Amino acid sequence: MTTHRKPATVAHQALALHKQYRGKVALKPLVRATRATLGLLYTPGVGAVASFVAAHPEHAKTYTSAGRFVAVVSDGSAVLGLGNIGPVGALPVMEGKALLFKELANVDAVPIVLDVHTADEIVAVVQAIAPSFAGINLEDIAAPLCFEVEERLKRLLTIPVMHDDQHGTAIVALAGLMNACKVVGKSIARVRIAVIGAGAAGTAIAKLFLRAGVSDVVVVDRKGIVSATRTDLHAEKRDLALSTNREGRSGDVREAVAGADAVIGVSGPGTIHPEHIRVMAQRPIVFALANPVPEILPKDAEAAGAAVVATGRSDFPNQINNALVFPGVFRGALDRGVSRITDDMQVRVARKLAALVVRPTARSIIPSIFDRRVVSAVASAIR
Amino acid sequence: MTTHRKPATVAHQALALHKQYRGKVALKPLVRATRATLGLLYTPGVGAVASFVAAHPEHAKTYTSAGRFVAVVSDGSAVLGLGNIGPVGALPVMEGKALLFKELANVDAVPIVLDVHTADEIVAVVQAIAPSFAGINLEDIAAPLCFEVEERLKRLLTIPVMHDDQHGTAIVALAGLMNACKVVGKSIARVRIAVIGAGAAGTAIAKLFLRAGVSDVVVVDRKGIVSATRTDLHAEKRDLALSTNREGRSGDVREAVAGADAVIGVSGPGTIHPEHIRVMAQRPIVFALANPVPEILPKDAEAAGAAVVATGRSDFPNQINNALVFPGVFRGALDRGVSRITDDMQVRVARKLAALVVRPTARSIIPSIFDRRVVSAVASAIR
Repeated sequence: MTTHRKPATVAHQALALHKQYRGKVALKPLVRATRATLGLLYTPGVGAVASFVAAHPEHAKTYTSAGRFVAVVSDGSAVLGLGNIGPVGALPVMEGKALLFKELANVDAVPIVLDVHTADEIVAVVQAIAPSFAGINLEDIAAPLCFEVEERLKRLLTIPVMHDDQHGTAIVALAGLMNACKVVGKSIARVRIAVIGAGAAGTAIAKLFLRAGVSDVVVVDRKGIVSATRTDLHAEKRDLALSTNREGRSGDVREAVAGADAVIGVSGPGTIHPEHIRVMAQRPIVFALANPVPEILPKDAEAAGAAVVATGRSDFPNQINNALVFPGVFRGALDRGVSRITDDMQVRVARKLAALVVRPTARSIIPSIFDRRVVSAVASAIR
Repeated sequence: MTTHRKPATVAHQALALHKQYRGKVALKPLVRATRATLGLLYTPGVGAVASFVAAHPEHAKTYTSAGRFVAVVSDGSAVLGLGNIGPVGALPVMEGKALLFKELANVDAVPIVLDVHTADEIVAVVQAIAPSFAGINLEDIAAPLCFEVEERLKRLLTIPVMHDDQHGTAIVALAGLMNACKVVGKSIARVRIAVIGAGAAGTAIAKLFLRAGVSDVVVVDRKGIVSATRTDLHAEKRDLALSTNREGRSGDVREAVAGADAVIGVSGPGTIHPEHIRVMAQRPIVFALANPVPEILPKDAEAAGAAVVATGRSDFPNQINNALVFPGVFRGALDRGVSRITDDMQVRVARKLAALVVRPTARSIIPSIFDRRVVSAVASAIR
């Protein structure tokens, strides 16, 4: 679990492995094409299936890949912690998600990166290709564009649409917080949280935590605490300013974390310092979720007094990773014909995930993504 | 080869088989996701691959699925012989092509049906998703829209784009014609051909046949012979009128086939009658390629004097089917980094295909799509 490979070695090995297989996923026939089957799967037999699903589109999901394929869509504008590296740069990550979808939840996902970058264009393209798919997993699209894109697609399409950077991250962070609170002996209803980063993940975390009953959340963006007194906020952050920061704090990260019970970093390396942790409430919880390099390294956070530390990485304990969520969410949605992932479902998924860890400890607040119970627990909450 | 199942039985069996598997293709991991590989295939390792291909996009094809995945794209405006049945109706056919791509040529193809129907929209969507793919196989898009869509995408993209209904059909029809000419003892340079249907396939067949040295071609659309004297022709048909019909014929199918050495039907059931065949040159060649129901049944064509008959179906001899072409064309293009399928390559593919039948006979002018030599022969012509 905690074998630390040097970054240079990891990069070298990752490149070599990707080159060896030329990526990570391929297509697979479900039926062999033989003389016997081809007259049914292709001409002339397929004509009957084409006519039937055209006349009865509600049956397309039963007779075609449109009942099974999920598109993993990105414009590459916010890839991991690497920023706006474009669609080509996003592709290895989307393919990685497709691999996880299949391996963890037997969901057939197709990486689709887009060389368009306005909300209108992204929405138009996804709407155009939607009849091919049973669901749309939006990924690595920068805020605030991602909010508009997801909202519009949810209104336009009748298949589930989820921006994983928002909701996948928020759900697994909430699950982690639930168990971290148990470890430090606090009630989730009485904790105050500082969220560092007001992008896709930070915004969704703040909203979902409040929905789950967290006492208060203070969100910090590059210019400081998001508060109603600021005049530089776009619409989504103005909403955030109204629902968060009850005490009307202003200032920088230090003001946000002072006395906070937990800090959730969804920003980038170096934004959480040991001195920030020292001014938090007793037994502080630190989630440093930036990838690939966390806001603060676990050993530094622990040295500064953190009682529970989590990151987004597989090579530290407590991996708060969307991979715990997105495979099961879509598995559940496909199995039960759910066309909209609601906020209530999201809270329910977090509770199910947290409950899989029967006795949480500082080094075990969240199940492993290889825990075979995860996908079915998550999927069972989508109904 | 020639077991004739009743259409109702075929339809029933085809529907049952599609329902059983819920379609025909799925995703497959190329590498297992384990604790050991996941740190390389996903965070943190994938970050290095994302950064690398973003900085060096020319290497994306080596490190990601963009070097292997071909999109099979349709708007459903001209599906088989069924017409404009829309994207949902097109999906079983696109999935069938994806199955054939994989089974015959190990090409990973993804069915993408589009709910947009103007050239501008189709071009914009395909251009937007293009960074995800190594090639674009356009399919079942109605004429004349298909000509503009293909031409524009060829200009805009640096990956191979082929509208299979045009070029796949034209190539395999040319291969069939080459061998049919041998059977009836005629030189391809001296035959005159009547093409019934001036859609995607008919237009491409006329152009490719002339390029391959056929003496003359007369094309017939719904209103009669395409000729320079007509005033109702769109741009593509005006071009056709100038390059075909050297003798300036006008009239209906009967005028077009009178004295012709071969008739190629790419229209719909019932457009070729026994009396048409009786007025052709001696030892007439009849290709009735409409799917699923040919222009004339082989037994009726033979009874009327046809020396060689071919259809698009697997349950009659001489299956003139694009499936002989598209898998190998894209296999060759991907293997050799060919970004444009030229007319010369198309003629070369037809020659390679024809040459696989060492001694053509009336009932064997074209190899079977299960002939293991087909894909490599076709692929070898793409260079």
